[in-house]
Amino acid sequence: MKVRLLDNGSIVIEHTQLMWNVPGEQARIPVYSVLIEHDDGLFLFDTGIDLDHMNRVLPFELPEQTPEQTIPAQLESCGFEVGDVTTLVNSHLHIDHVGGNKHFAGTGTKNVLHAKELAQARNHEPFEFFGYSDKSWDYEGANFVPVTGDFELAKGLWLYETPGHTVGHYSLLVQPASGAKPMLFAFDVAYTAAALEKGIQPGFHNDPVAGVRSIRRVKALAEEHGADVFLSHDMDAWRGYKHAPDFYEA
Amino acid sequence: MKVRLLDNGSIVIEHTQLMWNVPGEQARIPVYSVLIEHDDGLFLFDTGIDLDHMNRVLPFELPEQTPEQTIPAQLESCGFEVGDVTTLVNSHLHIDHVGGNKHFAGTGTKNVLHAKELAQARNHEPFEFFGYSDKSWDYEGANFVPVTGDFELAKGLWLYETPGHTVGHYSLLVQPASGAKPMLFAFDVAYTAAALEKGIQPGFHNDPVAGVRSIRRVKALAEEHGADVFLSHDMDAWRGYKHAPDFYEA
Repeated sequence: MKVRLLDNGSIVIEHTQLMWNVPGEQARIPVYSVLIEHDDGLFLFDTGIDLDHMNRVLPFELPEQTPEQTIPAQLESCGFEVGDVTTLVNSHLHIDHVGGNKHFAGTGTKNVLHAKELAQARNHEPFEFFGYSDKSWDYEGANFVPVTGDFELAKGLWLYETPGHTVGHYSLLVQPASGAKPMLFAFDVAYTAAALEKGIQPGFHNDPVAGVRSIRRVKALAEEHGADVFLSHDMDAWRGYKHAPDFYEA
Repeated sequence: MKVRLLDNGSIVIEHTQLMWNVPGEQARIPVYSVLIEHDDGLFLFDTGIDLDHMNRVLPFELPEQTPEQTIPAQLESCGFEVGDVTTLVNSHLHIDHVGGNKHFAGTGTKNVLHAKELAQARNHEPFEFFGYSDKSWDYEGANFVPVTGDFELAKGLWLYETPGHTVGHYSLLVQPASGAKPMLFAFDVAYTAAALEKGIQPGFHNDPVAGVRSIRRVKALAEEHGADVFLSHDMDAWRGYKHAPDFYEA
């Protein structure tokens, strides 16, 4: 397996979103996707932001995304095109994880996601308005594969239910066939390494009690599997990761 | 009935606490209790902050409370003493609603509160640490009367379950025997009139989905009964209310 992190640009958020109810400075945070070359196909996890939508709905988050940071361009930089992706998985359907889904219209690519997430994003709480404001993933002919529970999506690719931030949030554990270290993509269970360490969830959430359990779950999974945890929105951590087309051998 | 609002001082909180995830300026907010002279006894709802505890645990909230703003002094200003209170009700057990409970040790005063609130405050989530940090209400010999559901505490005094901010939050509807306008004390369902109007709950909460339902419930109750809604932490509204020893005839 080859695991690549696709740069999708960045946005600026309040510190109380980064860490719920903890005051501090605004921060520019990265947005990225995960592409995995696997014997069973090409798997893409999340698709970043759509710059036009962000500028329309959340201009105060000062979104930045160059043409090279879009999903088609990132795939191309790795030698692929959109149609090569066999399975698209969304950890959840928030605005900064679905921006490139629309590029898969007409490809027939399977879109795996939690059944509860699909229902919630279409009929969300009022406080989830901004999070679910980009509905371009819900195009006609989208090939949704709604799932529930923990399961092995393909050999060595495990999805674990980690709700709280949203009702149907999934985390991804990559268990390499090689002797390489497992990788645990916790997506938005916590935004930064410091937040995970302290057990502080994002300011945006649906169920903070579930969020506490999911933070514990991520820590337990990382310990059980000896995995490195990858955070979705930690700029310092992001700078230390390998960026596509560079890859992690797994 | 005579309904009096007892001034218990003030604290400063972040705007994202006043309105969840909405940035803005810090605000100094009032803290107060409600004393009701009723044919069946003297009822006190909430007891404000304890200044020493606040200065120990949350000094950055810049708590202010003069000796005249403590529960014993406020009761005295109305011609009562602590032992005259027959029933103390806590809308919930957060730090700014329980500070004066300890003064009732030894009086035998009944302490009515939601059964779930009592359990939660003793065994809370990590993110509720500050909210439930003042445990002085849990003194030996406290005469707890844990309750559940909506019910008429005494003629014209209705408690309505309004969870979300905390698991066992109660709101109070006062239905005057006279022709006076009903009064709905929504406590911390929303902190300000603007927050209630917009449907935005406080940044501190246990279950925001329940919080949305409770905001709707408060609005529906106010409309059904033609009641004035009293907010717990709205400085502008507070300045317009009558303060003890002045009273509302109900």
